[in-house]
Amino acid sequence: MVKVGIIGATGYAGNELVRLLLGHKDVEIVWLGSRSYIDQKYSDVYRNMFKLVDARCMDDNMEQLADEVDVIFTATPQGLCASLVNDEILSKVKIIDLSADFRLKNVDIYEKWYKLEHKSPQYIDEAVYGLCEINRDKVNNNTRIIANPGCYTTTSILTLYPLVKEEIINPDTIIIDAKSGTSGAGRGAKVANLFCEVNESMKAYGVGTHRHTPEIEEQLGYACGRDDLKLIFTPHLVPMNRGILVTAYANLAKDVTYEDVKAAYDKYYDKEYFVRVLPKDACPETRWVEGSNFVDIGFKIEPRTNRIIAMGALDNLVKGAAGQAVQNMNLLFGFEENEGLKIAPMFP
Amino acid sequence: MVKVGIIGATGYAGNELVRLLLGHKDVEIVWLGSRSYIDQKYSDVYRNMFKLVDARCMDDNMEQLADEVDVIFTATPQGLCASLVNDEILSKVKIIDLSADFRLKNVDIYEKWYKLEHKSPQYIDEAVYGLCEINRDKVNNNTRIIANPGCYTTTSILTLYPLVKEEIINPDTIIIDAKSGTSGAGRGAKVANLFCEVNESMKAYGVGTHRHTPEIEEQLGYACGRDDLKLIFTPHLVPMNRGILVTAYANLAKDVTYEDVKAAYDKYYDKEYFVRVLPKDACPETRWVEGSNFVDIGFKIEPRTNRIIAMGALDNLVKGAAGQAVQNMNLLFGFEENEGLKIAPMFP
Amino acid sequence: MVKVGIIGATGYAGNELVRLLLGHKDVEIVWLGSRSYIDQKYSDVYRNMFKLVDARCMDDNMEQLADEVDVIFTATPQGLCASLVNDEILSKVKIIDLSADFRLKNVDIYEKWYKLEHKSPQYIDEAVYGLCEINRDKVNNNTRIIANPGCYTTTSILTLYPLVKEEIINPDTIIIDAKSGTSGAGRGAKVANLFCEVNESMKAYGVGTHRHTPEIEEQLGYACGRDDLKLIFTPHLVPMNRGILVTAYANLAKDVTYEDVKAAYDKYYDKEYFVRVLPKDACPETRWVEGSNFVDIGFKIEPRTNRIIAMGALDNLVKGAAGQAVQNMNLLFGFEENEGLKIAPMFP
Amino acid sequence: MVKVGIIGATGYAGNELVRLLLGHKDVEIVWLGSRSYIDQKYSDVYRNMFKLVDARCMDDNMEQLADEVDVIFTATPQGLCASLVNDEILSKVKIIDLSADFRLKNVDIYEKWYKLEHKSPQYIDEAVYGLCEINRDKVNNNTRIIANPGCYTTTSILTLYPLVKEEIINPDTIIIDAKSGTSGAGRGAKVANLFCEVNESMKAYGVGTHRHTPEIEEQLGYACGRDDLKLIFTPHLVPMNRGILVTAYANLAKDVTYEDVKAAYDKYYDKEYFVRVLPKDACPETRWVEGSNFVDIGFKIEPRTNRIIAMGALDNLVKGAAGQAVQNMNLLFGFEENEGLKIAPMFP
Repeated sequence: MVKVGIIGATGYAGNELVRLLLGHKDVEIVWLGSRSYIDQKYSDVYRNMFKLVDARCMDDNMEQLADEVDVIFTATPQGLCASLVNDEILSKVKIIDLSADFRLKNVDIYEKWYKLEHKSPQYIDEAVYGLCEINRDKVNNNTRIIANPGCYTTTSILTLYPLVKEEIINPDTIIIDAKSGTSGAGRGAKVANLFCEVNESMKAYGVGTHRHTPEIEEQLGYACGRDDLKLIFTPHLVPMNRGILVTAYANLAKDVTYEDVKAAYDKYYDKEYFVRVLPKDACPETRWVEGSNFVDIGFKIEPRTNRIIAMGALDNLVKGAAGQAVQNMNLLFGFEENEGLKIAPMFP
Repeated sequence: MVKVGIIGATGYAGNELVRLLLGHKDVEIVWLGSRSYIDQKYSDVYRNMFKLVDARCMDDNMEQLADEVDVIFTATPQGLCASLVNDEILSKVKIIDLSADFRLKNVDIYEKWYKLEHKSPQYIDEAVYGLCEINRDKVNNNTRIIANPGCYTTTSILTLYPLVKEEIINPDTIIIDAKSGTSGAGRGAKVANLFCEVNESMKAYGVGTHRHTPEIEEQLGYACGRDDLKLIFTPHLVPMNRGILVTAYANLAKDVTYEDVKAAYDKYYDKEYFVRVLPKDACPETRWVEGSNFVDIGFKIEPRTNRIIAMGALDNLVKGAAGQAVQNMNLLFGFEENEGLKIAPMFP
Repeated sequence: MVKVGIIGATGYAGNELVRLLLGHKDVEIVWLGSRSYIDQKYSDVYRNMFKLVDARCMDDNMEQLADEVDVIFTATPQGLCASLVNDEILSKVKIIDLSADFRLKNVDIYEKWYKLEHKSPQYIDEAVYGLCEINRDKVNNNTRIIANPGCYTTTSILTLYPLVKEEIINPDTIIIDAKSGTSGAGRGAKVANLFCEVNESMKAYGVGTHRHTPEIEEQLGYACGRDDLKLIFTPHLVPMNRGILVTAYANLAKDVTYEDVKAAYDKYYDKEYFVRVLPKDACPETRWVEGSNFVDIGFKIEPRTNRIIAMGALDNLVKGAAGQAVQNMNLLFGFEENEGLKIAPMFP
Repeated sequence: MVKVGIIGATGYAGNELVRLLLGHKDVEIVWLGSRSYIDQKYSDVYRNMFKLVDARCMDDNMEQLADEVDVIFTATPQGLCASLVNDEILSKVKIIDLSADFRLKNVDIYEKWYKLEHKSPQYIDEAVYGLCEINRDKVNNNTRIIANPGCYTTTSILTLYPLVKEEIINPDTIIIDAKSGTSGAGRGAKVANLFCEVNESMKAYGVGTHRHTPEIEEQLGYACGRDDLKLIFTPHLVPMNRGILVTAYANLAKDVTYEDVKAAYDKYYDKEYFVRVLPKDACPETRWVEGSNFVDIGFKIEPRTNRIIAMGALDNLVKGAAGQAVQNMNLLFGFEENEGLKIAPMFP
């Protein structure tokens, strides 16, 4: 049994990690770290876990934790993982970081968009950007740090990757209009996230400044061999708990038919368990992926304007966070990649 | 592998059965019956099942079905199961009926409350009322028909059973105020169930006339040896997808402490996997059971009025329908009772 | 023009007061008090008021305010109004207190249930409990303090008053099961009120201990000449913004027909603009009163158990708070009682 | 008093017309037409109107209606108004058509996108496209037909008009990503609009084919003198009752500062009561306009990609339907343009 520790276990992603890991036959959760709820019973913080998890919340001592577990998931605010990790820890334990600390290869971009000094830039290069469908080959038993991709990022990249890679679209024309359920905003007590503030409303936020923008640019840049790719990414808050929907627009770079584009998607995703390219004319809907690790993708060629509209949907807490982290763990430890993740979406 | 057929596979409970059975290691779904969507791909009706279920919807031919499967789940409107079942079918296959046809032992009460002639009264006696926690001993390999309890009923009975059985409350004073998510209203296209009609509203319905009333009365009547028990049951519609919350009130029949009542609950539920009696002063909330087969129960003695307030919460599509049906199937076929049902509740 | 000041203008009830008073032809809002947002533009806190309200938030200085306005609404936490008011202030200005400070005539009960020392018990007697439909005659130009009733209380009392007053029910058997939208929980930043915590869930809270209980008992006690009335009141939180639904149960005290009970309701409410007794068999639904000052009432005699189920619905921020406060203001200043309140409910 | 008749009074827009007209001091509703609910009390169909509207639903006889009223609102499916109207009717009564029949000046485009034969093309030219902020001068006492703009259209055009008119953006690069509450889908009983299907989900629909596309193209085309303008318009369904949010993207056509763009908006909207251009960096949110006739507009220049993101929000049933219709009525009859519409948005 692989022994697992979670730092940040009482956030929404942390709780989702617990849910998924409870259903994983090869792991045992031995450490639930939560600075805010230290010494409290985990099932008093998340009563869904009553009678399923007996443990109390522990502190965030990564050094001690490294002695007791095989892998640490950090589901914490930006900066914490980078400030805790060191050579000794990495010699003992693998890290799957759900925060952004090791996602951006360019530390200057990290520091500019996150307005944070990076405390461990020396580990950025070795960290693998854990978008399994694209970087699977880079993950193996020797990998020490996985930078688990963001929720918006995962949806955006998987939706656009084949179009960029196969030069179907002009990458300089990409516009990503993204919509997210409210669990993406975290469990912090803020007026803006109160039920009455979010319910019955819709808004854009972080327009032109959202931190997932450079992450998408960097990864799609790799796909087209560009290090200066710029695109527009606009996130919106939706009155629902879970789910991200991305509607992406770009100019077509060549004359293509539906079949051409479908073939491009199939080239990359045909064998992927977690990516479902929908039948022609079907649009992804977040309800069809809820609770699962699936990404649903659809697209429509718009001949009147010579553009394409590509759409993707996933559950931000699963494929957008905890599920992808478990998928990465499976790769790290040589388990079946979908072990513990063969969960059918729950509807309604 | 046990071969399973579902009649009524395209209702919400049918889809939930599919979700749960996909996660059950000992069964294979071989027939998805749906009169309304016959010949359509199941995953076109419920796209959550895309790439998971390849089959097309079949008709409701129970005779043919009986030749092909080991157990039939009927998740259909009242009357259908009773009209289809016959000796030959029962000689070949087990029936787990999620409708009300075999729940009420008194056929007159069935016909009065459901305003339907019962087409197979001869099978009522042998059908086991499948509330596993209470009637587990009645289910075995020879059982031919399980009457799977209703969602409101399961919540109400499990919440009140120990109080009635242990004579803690006066059963003639029971008032059950129940609140249900909208999936309980089914997938029929009705104006009353449109998003804009249900959202941002709350209402009682079926006041004094809801069909689950006599089912609760009959079962709680068995617990106290009364065949004339009458109680009030008032259902309400809540703007949420899933979940039933029952708030039940009754006069105390004797002087009891918190510990006395807790002991009564523990006597019946301490060893039950699916019943979670919450810590003192905790109230059940539907969010903590969503997606799971758990029932959460709490209570509060109200000394000022010498009454007790007992509360129960479950997911109407799981423990209130499909989950309980799978639990019954497990009993029928000698599987572990929680096989396929060890699912942690999903939050948020 | 009557000059109005609001203390606590940035809570939900405060914002609703602003909305209603903007539509009132005889008043002018001259002071928007808010300790938390002092000096900020009101329309930056509540952007619905952009271009409608230009003022900035002021502090809570009631003495200064008393010099500038004719009436002060206090929409603040318990205790604040009682701690600020004094003879000089009352000599200059009328107070409509939306908190509980002057609702309970028995100060011991106040201090016990609110766990607060009452700072101005000397004014309790003169304060009029402003449930206009019942206490209209007590309000006139000399009234100095209105204790504006609570939201649960208004719904509960108006629903039950004729039944108690006309001795149709046994008041010792009253059980009130109440359901409230989340705006009733206020705008404070608490984890429990985050979107993801409230959405898709339903729970009871404050079981046996909610502070509106003694207020309902006191007022219904007056109706039946009892100072020791005890009843059960159980509030629930519903995933919707606005609306309270009360489902009340009681034993019938005499043999009555539908017409008898209807006549009792008509006796008290037939001429009331804001109370709508629904047609036979219709159940109140919160959606039909949203945004308005109406209370909708329905009832059903349950002959099997000799009980009655009485139901009431209102908008907690209007008839349950700001609307009723404006109605009281209209009485205080001799305006038409429904001036500014002839607003049709908004649906959906 | 202007006498008003409504055809299609039992749709959501019809009910909203009733709500608004009840608050209009110069009109009287004398005919509530509804084929589906003929002879039923209007307040039984929409109980929010109980005690406010006594009338029963009438049929759709426009000829008879023309004799009895001064203005007819048609809030019906496409095609009905065009099939009923004739010279005699137009000689007696004014028509404000909330359907699309007279919005598109090019009848071929109408017939292509709506897949309907237009029954009265002879009236298209004289019908005024009733986007009051832009076409106010075309409406006067002689106007016989107002084509009341669609909800998506109103939001999109008002958001983009100054940018197109002032040549700030390249109109060939416009991409409109729109999000709508579910009341926009109407009150028809469809599975796709059931609570459980819409709640907790988000989807695009009508991608590349939505009928509001050519309406936006035609109107923005007038603004830039182009009759071949093509743009992308993608609508999305949001789990909320009301509200439309438009996020529009376009390439900048010239070098502009925030102040330049603000000046362009101010040039057209500074004096407009119903258009609120928000402070710098503020994004429109649908919650801030709910129940009102306001449109809130914000924008952000995106220098990295040399594009602009312009956003608009309104209440689809008010400024997007009934409110704009009343605004047009006010223009037709010479009332103050905001008579009956000075309603503050309701929050939460």
